[in-house]
Amino acid sequence: MADNQISRFPVPELKELPEDIRDRILAVQEKSGFVPNVFLALAHRPDEFRAFFAYHDALMEKEGGLTKGEREMIVVTTSGLNQCIYCVVAHGAILRIREKNSLLADQLATNYRKADITPRQKVMLDFAVKVSLNAYEISESDIEKMHQHGFSVEDIWDIGAIAAFFSLSNRMANLTSMRPNDEFYLLGRIAKD
Amino acid sequence: MADNQISRFPVPELKELPEDIRDRILAVQEKSGFVPNVFLALAHRPDEFRAFFAYHDALMEKEGGLTKGEREMIVVTTSGLNQCIYCVVAHGAILRIREKNSLLADQLATNYRKADITPRQKVMLDFAVKVSLNAYEISESDIEKMHQHGFSVEDIWDIGAIAAFFSLSNRMANLTSMRPNDEFYLLGRIAKD
Amino acid sequence: MADNQISRFPVPELKELPEDIRDRILAVQEKSGFVPNVFLALAHRPDEFRAFFAYHDALMEKEGGLTKGEREMIVVTTSGLNQCIYCVVAHGAILRIREKNSLLADQLATNYRKADITPRQKVMLDFAVKVSLNAYEISESDIEKMHQHGFSVEDIWDIGAIAAFFSLSNRMANLTSMRPNDEFYLLGRIAKD
Amino acid sequence: MADNQISRFPVPELKELPEDIRDRILAVQEKSGFVPNVFLALAHRPDEFRAFFAYHDALMEKEGGLTKGEREMIVVTTSGLNQCIYCVVAHGAILRIREKNSLLADQLATNYRKADITPRQKVMLDFAVKVSLNAYEISESDIEKMHQHGFSVEDIWDIGAIAAFFSLSNRMANLTSMRPNDEFYLLGRIAKD
Amino acid sequence: MADNQISRFPVPELKELPEDIRDRILAVQEKSGFVPNVFLALAHRPDEFRAFFAYHDALMEKEGGLTKGEREMIVVTTSGLNQCIYCVVAHGAILRIREKNSLLADQLATNYRKADITPRQKVMLDFAVKVSLNAYEISESDIEKMHQHGFSVEDIWDIGAIAAFFSLSNRMANLTSMRPNDEFYLLGRIAKD
Amino acid sequence: MADNQISRFPVPELKELPEDIRDRILAVQEKSGFVPNVFLALAHRPDEFRAFFAYHDALMEKEGGLTKGEREMIVVTTSGLNQCIYCVVAHGAILRIREKNSLLADQLATNYRKADITPRQKVMLDFAVKVSLNAYEISESDIEKMHQHGFSVEDIWDIGAIAAFFSLSNRMANLTSMRPNDEFYLLGRIAKD
Repeated sequence: MADNQISRFPVPELKELPEDIRDRILAVQEKSGFVPNVFLALAHRPDEFRAFFAYHDALMEKEGGLTKGEREMIVVTTSGLNQCIYCVVAHGAILRIREKNSLLADQLATNYRKADITPRQKVMLDFAVKVSLNAYEISESDIEKMHQHGFSVEDIWDIGAIAAFFSLSNRMANLTSMRPNDEFYLLGRIAKD
Repeated sequence: MADNQISRFPVPELKELPEDIRDRILAVQEKSGFVPNVFLALAHRPDEFRAFFAYHDALMEKEGGLTKGEREMIVVTTSGLNQCIYCVVAHGAILRIREKNSLLADQLATNYRKADITPRQKVMLDFAVKVSLNAYEISESDIEKMHQHGFSVEDIWDIGAIAAFFSLSNRMANLTSMRPNDEFYLLGRIAKD
Repeated sequence: MADNQISRFPVPELKELPEDIRDRILAVQEKSGFVPNVFLALAHRPDEFRAFFAYHDALMEKEGGLTKGEREMIVVTTSGLNQCIYCVVAHGAILRIREKNSLLADQLATNYRKADITPRQKVMLDFAVKVSLNAYEISESDIEKMHQHGFSVEDIWDIGAIAAFFSLSNRMANLTSMRPNDEFYLLGRIAKD
Repeated sequence: MADNQISRFPVPELKELPEDIRDRILAVQEKSGFVPNVFLALAHRPDEFRAFFAYHDALMEKEGGLTKGEREMIVVTTSGLNQCIYCVVAHGAILRIREKNSLLADQLATNYRKADITPRQKVMLDFAVKVSLNAYEISESDIEKMHQHGFSVEDIWDIGAIAAFFSLSNRMANLTSMRPNDEFYLLGRIAKD
Repeated sequence: MADNQISRFPVPELKELPEDIRDRILAVQEKSGFVPNVFLALAHRPDEFRAFFAYHDALMEKEGGLTKGEREMIVVTTSGLNQCIYCVVAHGAILRIREKNSLLADQLATNYRKADITPRQKVMLDFAVKVSLNAYEISESDIEKMHQHGFSVEDIWDIGAIAAFFSLSNRMANLTSMRPNDEFYLLGRIAKD
Repeated sequence: MADNQISRFPVPELKELPEDIRDRILAVQEKSGFVPNVFLALAHRPDEFRAFFAYHDALMEKEGGLTKGEREMIVVTTSGLNQCIYCVVAHGAILRIREKNSLLADQLATNYRKADITPRQKVMLDFAVKVSLNAYEISESDIEKMHQHGFSVEDIWDIGAIAAFFSLSNRMANLTSMRPNDEFYLLGRIAKD
């Protein structure tokens, strides 16, 4: 792959894109100050782009029993185990911002078992990792253990579904050799970032 | 899990569902003669349902260099390795119908290396399996090998994206303990089915 | 491998075979209506053929605490994990017939943890899978757990020995690229089969 | 398991055994000076005993392209990887005697890739290990590679079948917690043994 | 583990330590501005401490064909695969400083195959990873491949020995649950750091 | 590798070596009657040699709660799993001598779960194996289990540190293709050895 290219597949120009996709990208740019490369890399396929971000938002932006920071913990942990640079770097930045914690993302990306999390979050991540790596072994006893730690039926769906969605996302990022924007690496590492 | 239930999560009644989802389900029922359980199990979360099927259709129903039967080969093969009963049984049925071949699905679900496929399809499935199980190792040399066997850039995206999407799908099915409809097991096994 | 050949090793003509082997094969043909390919593929080595089927019958045909259907469950489950098309397809057919259940074999071949079996059968299959994949870890605590679920010493030997024997059988089938007869795929799928 | 017991399953008295089995055991005792425990442990099931040793002899005692020492190399190497104490210790002794080499068995049991063997024997063991651990991946290209190193079709069957048979044997030994006789450990280690 | 403790084993006070160890620690503190926790955690065992750092310096501080930055690449890559937070975070910081590159450490810790490195460095890391994860498979063909990419005999020893030493180091850090100092996370991320 | 060479890297002549290293080697030779090859192979790098043996002695020669025989059990068990011929053969000999037991080393090298050890030693080896193979999973519950079996904090460090040190040692031996001296194979196998 040539240095610094965003994807090993063709990346469209903004002006070539359908209007709804261009609008979404411009909105993100306005909010974040830059366009995360996942938007450009996936815009190669507009229909898949729309479904991908609709799914993402349905899981990551909705109300629910998990905080937004906890959802990012699931993303960073499972993406580390799936060796996905894009998701670790980009969602690591979001996690630092959401949790106002500059250390946690690097810990979770390497070994969630030793990160600065609560015992309940450890149980949450154990379940997410099992869905990500060995979903075929998920049994009623896993579900019961989650309930014992206070997770509701809807929480369990959320945790499992986020792990499942990023199993897709990690594979797309590794398939396309998606490159994280340089901006993500430093985001949220310095107070008042 | 109680015998024969569709999902370990709540399954909505058709009448409770948003109209667009109910319409989609009724359309499938009319076409297939029954409602595949994946529609009911995922309808528990309407927004995720919409994104899931939009993504599915964008990959499985579009025009492209792969036949629809070949796409189902990818699904059955990777779902077998991910030990997902729902996807093996349901997509095995679709594969039998698409390919008018009553043997291939059972072969691919167990060991695609020894199935009745062409050498080019073997290369396609090798790539799909690598994306499904070890996407972090996908390199330019994998891409080049695909080109040598005549797969275009768009074909490679299709193959990888189908494997990635069913990585999500397999995990949702195992998370929810989704049960395939009994109808699927026999579909496409008898000529003029 | 050329299309539809039975084995990648030489396959003898019936008339070339020693009389006892030919008789056995003709008896199977009379009973089943066709000669399962395993008989022809292994007949390449008459002494090994005799030992193989003597061993098989000693485990699968004898009286004992396990039903014949349960023995086939062990075969189908472990053969699925060992990715052996011949054993999954041929013993899947036998299982459907023995259990008068057209769904169970496809479930067990993909993920026995989610199949329509009793909790006691789940324990039986957990043990069989451990013998098949990690026999070096079998300890007294595994044996004790089996006793707690009502399995006798002889049952435990039966379960472990069937898993061990099909570890051999699965490897011979994959070594020879043994092809299941087309007849097996549909057997037992339709009532009154 | 109680100290020094032969098997975790019942072990019959010689006098209780069917005559043919008792005769075989007495013959081994006369030849070797002791009764290898595998004969006593498996005699718990006379029919399985007969099939097991018939199979063993068909592979290990017959004429063929592999020397008897090479066959034992396959047994020791694959049994080491399968963590089977009985087979490593007992067949290690036989290998030392057959090859008149007091070092080779311990090397092969730990890491065959670095043992004192010829390049052709290394190829033989690579194939045997693939059959033992990943038989589902055996393809025509493996077979062709074997031919390039001078192995005939019958040699390839022998190598694969020995690896397959000891996959059974290793599992039976680990299932029964079969204990090697103390005599085996020193056999063949001293010249003129 | 209590929050923010350095090690799950006792951590000595500086004043209790043998003079040579205290001097080494004070020298590091003067140079770095803080005492990396590995010095305090390992000081629990003075003799092991001395051997550990003597070994470390013999590999990481000596002259040789690898740049100091390349040696840190080996550490960060293999420590990521071994899921060692301490080594990823601490040596990630050193790598950023050595290479004056604020992105590379996070890339290597997640997936070295897609990091901003040269093809020759990719070969170096493939070899280091093989020593770290599958050293028993290292063969002459691996050595020859290294020579073809211009690595000398001494370079190969260096690469392998660094991977081997950090196999020890990663295990000690995970055994002790060694916590990286907060200072490391930001070091080398901002120009003129 | 040429037959019977000690290492695939250059091996220095005794007379070329720094005096302290030569003295150490001569002392070993006087005590053992031969020079174990690890001393010659590692002498290629004097500084690493000094650190290696200082570390080794700090763990293996010190006083402590584990007997010297138990420390060798850890070495032989983990080296078997890491497929390291040198360490299995050389430390197998030392273990036979330390424990005055001619069988134990061969058992532990193949499958420690079925060796002639006490339940407490089994717990010790379970912990050592976890540090050797999956140190990233070591948690407080592992530590607590060790305390329940009577292991002190210092014992736990010893066990883990020996497993960690031989993770280095096994990799150096496999990297260098280090050959055990022929003398080791028979040592300790005959009473009054």
